[in-house]
Amino acid sequence: MLLCDIGNTTLHFYDGAKDTRVSVEGFDPSSVYETVYYISVNEELDTQLNVYENWIDLRQFIDWSKYYETMGIDRVVACEAIENGVIVDAGSAVTVDVVKEGRFQGGFIYPGIRSMEQTYADISPRLEYSFNFELDLDKMPKNSRDAISYGYLRTLYGEVTRHSGPIIMTGGDADRFAPLFPGATVDEHLIFKGMKKILENRC
Amino acid sequence: MLLCDIGNTTLHFYDGAKDTRVSVEGFDPSSVYETVYYISVNEELDTQLNVYENWIDLRQFIDWSKYYETMGIDRVVACEAIENGVIVDAGSAVTVDVVKEGRFQGGFIYPGIRSMEQTYADISPRLEYSFNFELDLDKMPKNSRDAISYGYLRTLYGEVTRHSGPIIMTGGDADRFAPLFPGATVDEHLIFKGMKKILENRC
Repeated sequence: MLLCDIGNTTLHFYDGAKDTRVSVEGFDPSSVYETVYYISVNEELDTQLNVYENWIDLRQFIDWSKYYETMGIDRVVACEAIENGVIVDAGSAVTVDVVKEGRFQGGFIYPGIRSMEQTYADISPRLEYSFNFELDLDKMPKNSRDAISYGYLRTLYGEVTRHSGPIIMTGGDADRFAPLFPGATVDEHLIFKGMKKILENRC
Repeated sequence: MLLCDIGNTTLHFYDGAKDTRVSVEGFDPSSVYETVYYISVNEELDTQLNVYENWIDLRQFIDWSKYYETMGIDRVVACEAIENGVIVDAGSAVTVDVVKEGRFQGGFIYPGIRSMEQTYADISPRLEYSFNFELDLDKMPKNSRDAISYGYLRTLYGEVTRHSGPIIMTGGDADRFAPLFPGATVDEHLIFKGMKKILENRC
């Protein structure tokens, strides 16, 4: 049995021990013989997978009454992985979701690092910097680079830490954000934990 | 005597009673006979104004040791206007500056409404919404529009209200943000108050 998290460009497989990443481009689903439980944000690939009996979409096993219709499947599955806490999934967007006693409390969406750096650069070439992740969050900035880094990071930090419960970070940029949140856990397999739990609860 | 706040596209004049806005395009400085004290973020127009004796740049009268070199002149002058408080200047960027007993404590830069709406739309067409300014800031969102509105507004709100002192809002979008900050004052003439104060202190 394989688990697979399908994004727009990459299929991320997990067999319980090892990760494998495969490009969506040129991928042939019939090349996989094992049973694959998957989630996908890739509508095109989704349609292709429908005809394969060994590719099983986990979407159908989720109790959607706990979430909302347009909520990203990756956020939903991450929420299923935990009982209590704040999930920060840092990728092209940063999604923040709060779970209490196994119930989704709501969540918000913040731009990812590259998007937000581009936003500042588009406002003015004087604001074209990479963010300073070593910023002192307790000190109001007195230079341009820190002024935008603080605008991006301090505001997010304040809102994330306002909620009770452990902070769990995941996604491609988790390692960059993690030092700003002392005590936070980085869990790159959170989504697979959620998928496993959904499968177990189904049985 | 006239005061003038020069932006990239508009000259904003104030004679102590009345506002006048004039387009930068086609503007002829020699058409003004009165003494004009101005601040400018428009380098091109700045250079032109140098040759006119009745156009006086207020930049030279500012004690820059209190600020930092690349700080926008509009932010500096707004800070000069107050003794204590948090200034939120909402335009193409939202700048937030803290002043305590007449001293600049630092400040940060956050994207303006249109920039940030564009940022979300660029991340995914599913996030293409105008922000909901009637959002309940005490409730974690459970739909896409509120999830991005909260990401933009709740994070800013938390950081602005974390600082002590009155909140003073200015800039073209001040009226849109103001309802989110109960007790905040909207002062469209803050920049002119700062300019007047700089002039008075010079004498």
